Amino acid sequence: MRKVAVQTESKSYDVWIEAGCLHKLLPMLKSWKKQPTSIFIITDSTVAELYLDRVKNQLKDHYPLVEAVVPAGEASKSFVEFEQLLTVALENGLDRDSMIIALGGGVVGDIAGFVAATYMRGIRFVQIPTTLLAHDSSVGGKVAINHRLGKNMIGAFHQPEMVIYDPELLVSLPEQEWRSGFAEAFKHGLIQVPEFYQWLQEKIDSFVDLDVSLLEQLLERSIAVKAEIVAEDEKEAGVRAHLNLGHTLGHAIETQLGYGKMTHGEAVALGIIFAMRLSEQLYQVKLPINEFKQWLRQLGYDTNLPKTLQAESLLATMKKDKKVNAGIIRMVLMKEVGSVQVEEVDEKEILTLIEKMLGE
Amino acid sequence: MRKVAVQTESKSYDVWIEAGCLHKLLPMLKSWKKQPTSIFIITDSTVAELYLDRVKNQLKDHYPLVEAVVPAGEASKSFVEFEQLLTVALENGLDRDSMIIALGGGVVGDIAGFVAATYMRGIRFVQIPTTLLAHDSSVGGKVAINHRLGKNMIGAFHQPEMVIYDPELLVSLPEQEWRSGFAEAFKHGLIQVPEFYQWLQEKIDSFVDLDVSLLEQLLERSIAVKAEIVAEDEKEAGVRAHLNLGHTLGHAIETQLGYGKMTHGEAVALGIIFAMRLSEQLYQVKLPINEFKQWLRQLGYDTNLPKTLQAESLLATMKKDKKVNAGIIRMVLMKEVGSVQVEEVDEKEILTLIEKMLGE
Repeated sequence: MRKVAVQTESKSYDVWIEAGCLHKLLPMLKSWKKQPTSIFIITDSTVAELYLDRVKNQLKDHYPLVEAVVPAGEASKSFVEFEQLLTVALENGLDRDSMIIALGGGVVGDIAGFVAATYMRGIRFVQIPTTLLAHDSSVGGKVAINHRLGKNMIGAFHQPEMVIYDPELLVSLPEQEWRSGFAEAFKHGLIQVPEFYQWLQEKIDSFVDLDVSLLEQLLERSIAVKAEIVAEDEKEAGVRAHLNLGHTLGHAIETQLGYGKMTHGEAVALGIIFAMRLSEQLYQVKLPINEFKQWLRQLGYDTNLPKTLQAESLLATMKKDKKVNAGIIRMVLMKEVGSVQVEEVDEKEILTLIEKMLGE
Repeated sequence: MRKVAVQTESKSYDVWIEAGCLHKLLPMLKSWKKQPTSIFIITDSTVAELYLDRVKNQLKDHYPLVEAVVPAGEASKSFVEFEQLLTVALENGLDRDSMIIALGGGVVGDIAGFVAATYMRGIRFVQIPTTLLAHDSSVGGKVAINHRLGKNMIGAFHQPEMVIYDPELLVSLPEQEWRSGFAEAFKHGLIQVPEFYQWLQEKIDSFVDLDVSLLEQLLERSIAVKAEIVAEDEKEAGVRAHLNLGHTLGHAIETQLGYGKMTHGEAVALGIIFAMRLSEQLYQVKLPINEFKQWLRQLGYDTNLPKTLQAESLLATMKKDKKVNAGIIRMVLMKEVGSVQVEEVDEKEILTLIEKMLGE
């Protein structure tokens, strides 16, 4: 079975990647020395219909099971859902040796992971990603909920015990979800592995009927980049910040449009275009932006900022980004494909470029 | 200046203990290599009146300050306060290099620490304890809020950068607060340092006009026990659980009476009496329970369970304790003074003894 080992300061674990590997969940759990006293499956309304029974049927004769289904969508990463899930955990007597399964995409992983991080000061959890986007979010232990004043503002670092990535669960994804997850894959290439970026450009020109073996390779290579960065810098004191390429404007777009109006990755793609254009100005370099945009459009991405956005509001939201230090915006900029760094950027430069891009 | 070094796996820091040392807060902060971009002082309504200005006056010309005052009392360790404090942090633009000061007792330390643990996935915080009880809670990094189904159920391990313990801030404490904090001190003696327990019995027969030098010694010795245990076992995988002596029944008493009706330490003292009596039965040993109770009564503790409590409800709450595993209650029991261990205890034994003690 394909496997990427993730080694962080606080924990080492494996990401298993293979079509059909969900069926191996039970034997994998059974191999643990310290068996879970009970299992709390957290999923969302979309995934529950498709895959919840498959997971429960494997486990039900072996562990006491508790389940909770949150509404599908980013709005579920709220204080209200967080408290509600903790209440379910307490009402069902979960203890410190209980375990949480996050069955779903990034939203489920983030909120279930934050519940696991804070319930009784931290219990174990396992990620079973069901989206392409979750190939990024399920690795590295960042868990969080949103605040109306900013995305992922309340959270923790809490690594899973393992990640079980069955590409067969992705077949049901709508196209914009492919685009959402794929953005994190080409971002991994752009920040430090130019060959991977080239490989993606050569191999992927559509998400329709994607070959499973190709998808497995994509997942393995993309996760390997993430794992390497997280191993070096679990708590984002340095190089892990590079993963935020495209995210400063991307998060602001999501916040300004209202969570769930545009997928995360589609917003990040716009953020990457923005970061590349700003990089060209500030570093006086030439980046392959047009070629990049053309590829994105072929894959169905919108490469223009939505006209309903306002430059001043986007800037104000960017100033609440977690990378902001003493009021100064810090963004990931690119010197060439495969080489990025964090820079403090004058907000006037940002405002001017956003206004320009809104006018195009 | 008296100092206890706390070395945990995740962080090392100092607890400073000296009458008047609050005045050294500014130079201590100024010695940090990575200066805070802003400081968020969290305190409660009682402490704010007494000491908030003293802290602000020292810092206001040097750092941007934000403040929040929560109502005094355990009820402030709620989801609502937690969310509210995070909102204040976001509205005032706290960033990853901002810092939180927890100015107050255990309640303030717990909620301010949990805010620090989760804001942007964790920022730095400093503890300035203003109660005797906080000598225990401010060391070791346990932070939490309460859930209606149990105390400290939602939390994290998040170590402070330093603890500044100025015994002069304790002079204003009401007597039951002395009793509350003192219980953690004799607990430290009972679990592993019999000489310290003896020393306390010899030196402390009243909390009125306690000598400051005696108080400093008490704090230093009690904190040293805690620091040693936390150094060995930060995440409570082993020996740290011994610190829960008296807490299984103690927490249940607090929950059943309603938070704030009896101080934490007074409930723990009852829990310790209970644990000692259970230990005598189960280990067939003789413990100095009568002498202990006599000393407690001299210090103003009630050594009988409040008659309004019900045995069945207490047991039900004990079964929600964080040490419970697969439904079985685990308690810290004592073989002799200075030697304790965690044991699984049959709930019938617990019920019978509670009923007996309620009848006394």
